[in-house]
Formats: sequence, C-alpha cells, structure tokens
Amino acid sequence: MRKIGIDQLEDIALGASLLGAGGGGDPYIGRLMALGAIQDHGPVTMLDPEEVPDDAFIVPIAMMGAPTVLAEKGMMGDEFRVLVDMISKYYGKEVYGVMPIEAGGVNSMLPFVAAARLGLPLIDVDGMGRAFPELQMVTYTIGGVKSTPMALCDEKGNSTIINTVTNKWTENLARALTMEMGGSTSVILYAMDGKTMKEYGVKNIVTRSEQLGKAIRTIKEGRGTPQENFLEVAEGIKLFKGKIVDVLREVKGAFNIGKVVFDGINEYKGQSAFVQFQNENLACTVEGKILATVPDLICLVDTETFIPIPTDQLKYGKRVLVVGLQCYPSWRSEVGIEIVGPRYFGIETDYIPLEERAQNV
Amino acid sequence: MRKIGIDQLEDIALGASLLGAGGGGDPYIGRLMALGAIQDHGPVTMLDPEEVPDDAFIVPIAMMGAPTVLAEKGMMGDEFRVLVDMISKYYGKEVYGVMPIEAGGVNSMLPFVAAARLGLPLIDVDGMGRAFPELQMVTYTIGGVKSTPMALCDEKGNSTIINTVTNKWTENLARALTMEMGGSTSVILYAMDGKTMKEYGVKNIVTRSEQLGKAIRTIKEGRGTPQENFLEVAEGIKLFKGKIVDVLREVKGAFNIGKVVFDGINEYKGQSAFVQFQNENLACTVEGKILATVPDLICLVDTETFIPIPTDQLKYGKRVLVVGLQCYPSWRSEVGIEIVGPRYFGIETDYIPLEERAQNV
Repeated sequence: MRKIGIDQLEDIALGASLLGAGGGGDPYIGRLMALGAIQDHGPVTMLDPEEVPDDAFIVPIAMMGAPTVLAEKGMMGDEFRVLVDMISKYYGKEVYGVMPIEAGGVNSMLPFVAAARLGLPLIDVDGMGRAFPELQMVTYTIGGVKSTPMALCDEKGNSTIINTVTNKWTENLARALTMEMGGSTSVILYAMDGKTMKEYGVKNIVTRSEQLGKAIRTIKEGRGTPQENFLEVAEGIKLFKGKIVDVLREVKGAFNIGKVVFDGINEYKGQSAFVQFQNENLACTVEGKILATVPDLICLVDTETFIPIPTDQLKYGKRVLVVGLQCYPSWRSEVGIEIVGPRYFGIETDYIPLEERAQNV
Repeated sequence: MRKIGIDQLEDIALGASLLGAGGGGDPYIGRLMALGAIQDHGPVTMLDPEEVPDDAFIVPIAMMGAPTVLAEKGMMGDEFRVLVDMISKYYGKEVYGVMPIEAGGVNSMLPFVAAARLGLPLIDVDGMGRAFPELQMVTYTIGGVKSTPMALCDEKGNSTIINTVTNKWTENLARALTMEMGGSTSVILYAMDGKTMKEYGVKNIVTRSEQLGKAIRTIKEGRGTPQENFLEVAEGIKLFKGKIVDVLREVKGAFNIGKVVFDGINEYKGQSAFVQFQNENLACTVEGKILATVPDLICLVDTETFIPIPTDQLKYGKRVLVVGLQCYPSWRSEVGIEIVGPRYFGIETDYIPLEERAQNV
C-alpha cells in the first residue's frame, strides 16, 4: 500500500501514454481531471494486487469512445458515483476498490479521479498492460471472465446496465449506446472478485507506468545517450527513425483508423516506413517488411524529448522514433492472438514475436 | 374479470389491427404466438382497470423494431420471463400483471403471450388507444410518467436495463440497441403502479378491440349496407374510397416511411388522394386538401371485407376505404399535440380535429 500524490501521478500519466501505443488520446485532459481530484480530496491509496482479499468486489473504471469528444463535451462530475452505485446495487455487493482497464491517456487517469472522489483505494493492475480499441480485448477474456453485468452512463444522466452472451456482444451494444449518447460514455465492466483479478490481471502496471514516466522525464541524467537510456528503460527495440511525410486518417464506427508514413532520417536515411493504426498502432512496416504487429506495442516518441505521440497528434514534419515493446506474455497465447492478433485487425500476417522479427532484419 | 380464450383473441387481433392505423405489421404472427400460448396454458384472465389495486406493480409488454424482422428471426421463447425477472429484481417488486402499450398487430397480442406463459393477469388498458411509432408517444408521457427503468432483451440472450432523463432519450437509446441487436427486441417500459395506470391509461381498449373485431367479422349481419354498418361500429368518418396506384416506401432509422396514392372509385371517381405514413398513417390528403392528421386515426380497410390493411401490405390495385377515427381525448391536449401532432412528424399543418375538418369539405 502506498499513496499516489501529484508528482507520482504526473509520472504515471507520462509512462502510461507510452504503454498506450498510440491510443488513449491526449493524456492532457485525463491528467488534468486526476490532478484536480487529488487536489480536492488528497492522495489516492494504491494497493498491491496481493493486498486485495480474494472475495473483495472490485471494478474497473474507464471511458468508452473518442477521448477528443470527452474533451469537448466534458463530464457532469458524478458519473463514477452513478456507476459505482448502479453496479453495487445490481450485484448486491459493496465496491472494495477500483482499477484501470488499460494503460494509455485518459483511461490510465480516470480511475484516479474515481478513487479520489469516492474515497476508494486503487489497485495496481489492469486488463491489457497497454491499450486496445475494443472492450473484449482484455486478459480477463483470455481467462473466460464475463464483461457483464456492465454499467454505462453519459454526462446527461442517462445510464444502462448491460448483460450479454459474449464479450464481443458487450463491445457491440456498448459501442451503439456510446455513439447514440454523443460519442463518449463512462463505464464499469469486468466487475470481479480479488481472486480473479490476481489470476488474470496485468499486475503492477501502474508502478511500471510510473517508472517509465520517471525515466522519460530524467532521460538526460543516464549514463548513455538519451536514446540509449530510453531504449534501456523501456526495454524497447528500435524499429525506425523518420520524419512524418503523410498521415491518412478516417473515423469509422467511432474508431480512428489510418496510416502514418515516414521518410528515414540519420541511420535510416533513404529508407521508408509506415505504421497502421486503429486508435492504437497495429503494425510497423519498414522497407516493405513487417517488423512488429499487435499485440506487441508499437510506440512513436519524439526523437528529442522521447515524449510519446498519440495517433491523433501525428503531424506532417514531426521527427519520430518508432519503438517496439514486448506485450504481456498471455497475449501471445493462442487465445490471445485470436482476440488481438494482426488478423483480427485485418492485417494479413501471422503473429511473430517482435524480438524474433528483429533478428531477421 | 373475465377469461380471454381463442375466440375472443381472434376478435381482439382483428379489432386491434384497425386501431393500429396502418402500424404494427401483419397481425398474423402475433396472433399465432398468442393462440399457441393460450392453447398451451389455457385462457388468460383479463382484469378491468378498476379491479387493480392502487399499489399493484404492473408492466406493459411489447416488442420494439420491425415486426417483419420478428417474423423472420423469431423469439427464443423465454424473453418475457427474462424481462419480468429483470424488472422485478431491479425495482424490488413482484409483478402483479401485464398490459399492452399499444393497439396494432404484434403488440396487441404479445401481452397475451406473456400473460398465458407467466400465469399473470392482463389488464384491459393501453397507453395509446391506437399505435404510434416511437416509445415516448404514450398517454403516460402526457401525465409525466417516466418510461424507465426499462428492460430490453433480444432472442440471443443479451439484455439491458435503461435509465434516462427523458422519454425521448429512452426512444433513442432503445432504438440504437434494437438496431444493433438485429432489428427487433422485447421490452418492458413504463412499469408503474395501479393508480398511475388508472389515471393516465386508455381504459378498456382491449374490450373495444374485441367489439370492433366482432363487428367486422359479422359486418353482413347488420341492418344497413356493410359499409354503413362498418362506419357505425367504428364510429368512423369516411375520407376516401380508391384504388392504390402507387406506393412509395423507404426504411429509415428502422421506420417504414412512405406514401400511398389512390385514384378514386365509385362516388370518388375522378378524384385523387394520398396517405403519408411512418409505420402508422400520418395524414390523408384528398384533392390537395388535408382531411385528417395524427393523432386522429387514419385507417385503410378492404372495400369488401373491411379487413384493415397495414402499411407493409399496401399493393398496387388494391381497393381501399380510407376512414378517420377520433383519437383518445387526451391526445388533443396541447402536450399531446406536441408529442404526436402533425408537425412532430414533419407535416406542416396545425392539428385540427378530424370532425371539424370533415365539416369544411
């Protein structure tokens, strides 16, 4: 158990935006909301997963939809109270604590808003170890955990409880409601007991985000060059370095879908590469050869500051280092690949671990 | 209190299809399901509204979406059990009885399916006294009754509870879910106590359907011509008589929207008329002059058998009598006209009661 104050929160936000692998939107809005909540209510108590009793009833807190929409329309303020009350009443159980469902911009921060405002502890665990675009894409699905009963509400006061026969149906129904409600909603799903969380969750991911954030912030203090330091703390494999020459983007079914194209710089001069994305980055292709795909993390960072760049901030001329990070091990299982492998996203290649692909370059 | 067996049910189905004013789809599928349920479980007990205690918890039963889709994909069979259990658990109250929400094809019959299967009484009341295309269009909305908490489920086993800030939001969210679930769902909304039902419901509407059905069935036994007998029992005003020469139809947001055009026959020879519809008939224009609009009922019946013709069965060449029926009085209030008047449906005219328009022809 430890306290998360404003300094720790800043590092967590920065580190989580790297693990977001392009997704989760601008961390700015989520960070601002979490900072405000901690300023108002004091530091948040963070529990190690092992500190949570097996029978404790715990709930992930997240937003669904486009973070840019959330930034525009805002929240009414008591969404998390509404959600926690709904789910608590529906299950007939008191909520013991909250947790994030994914790393990445807004959704790494909103659980801190809920924890601070509701006076609940936050558990150092999530269901992805990164960010993914759809609700069924969590390690809990690999474990056969049901996503519902789910609670969903908007900033106007509308709310729903959803029960489904598969986690993919949860995605479909919650997405339809979110679009009808104006493009963003607040949600609780995969409510579970402590035992299930410890068995299938990605443990200590918030602490990992904090370490990454701190390392990026102090990148110039290390022994090597900043880039060497960055690759070492991120445990990253360098995939490419280039200048953005084109960004193709469309919004389809509430997803940001597209492709960013680079011309190589420095040691990559004369080469060309591109990264495809659906909210998160899906695959990186250099000189016609795929170097990394989901579920491994493909992260774009600024070549000078190493600040991660979400897909919605990609701009012509930006100089970017493309880095691959190994995903959480259970994503590499057969079921994991079925749920979030390249073919699910329409990329016609088998999944080959990042580090194996790198050896063949 | 009286028992509704197979004979009464046949008359109710026929009469309700007249009050459906073109909507509700082919009564065949709903009638078939209700007949099956009564054959399996015996006659249904129907209560007069005044027999229901003020504090009894009663629920309307209906389907949402396109009846033609329901006919194709069917039901799993225990939807009503799922809905009644959900709503009962959510409110923490036992369900005392069920009721229809509208007259018209399928939705006049499904409450009988639920009543027979669940062994609950059915109450002789509804919320429209006719059929309307959207969920907020009930006399309960005029009375300020909330449509939610609402229960909605599909035939695959997905189910939701919806809470909204307005009855129009209920329509929007339930419609989005229904479309995502494949075009038809089963619903309970406007769950209420006996007192509220007695204050705002359209009372004895099932009995009225039965009387209308019986009259249509025995139309040749009356004193006058069949048409005179029909207009007398229906308390209808003759608007036009013609042959269908064109049907314009499109499906938009899960609604059947369109227009049917007639060339006059007999006393209307040489004249032309058309009826606009959105699931239900909205307005009747004869020789360029509007003779009737919502919320009054515009009903198309066969000129020989006086069997009502739903909008999805309109066909070139069919000979049709167009009849206007006065709507339930509270629809003619200011709030009523706001909810279901001609302008809500995009027809640019003030509401003038049917019988006044008829005097000026």
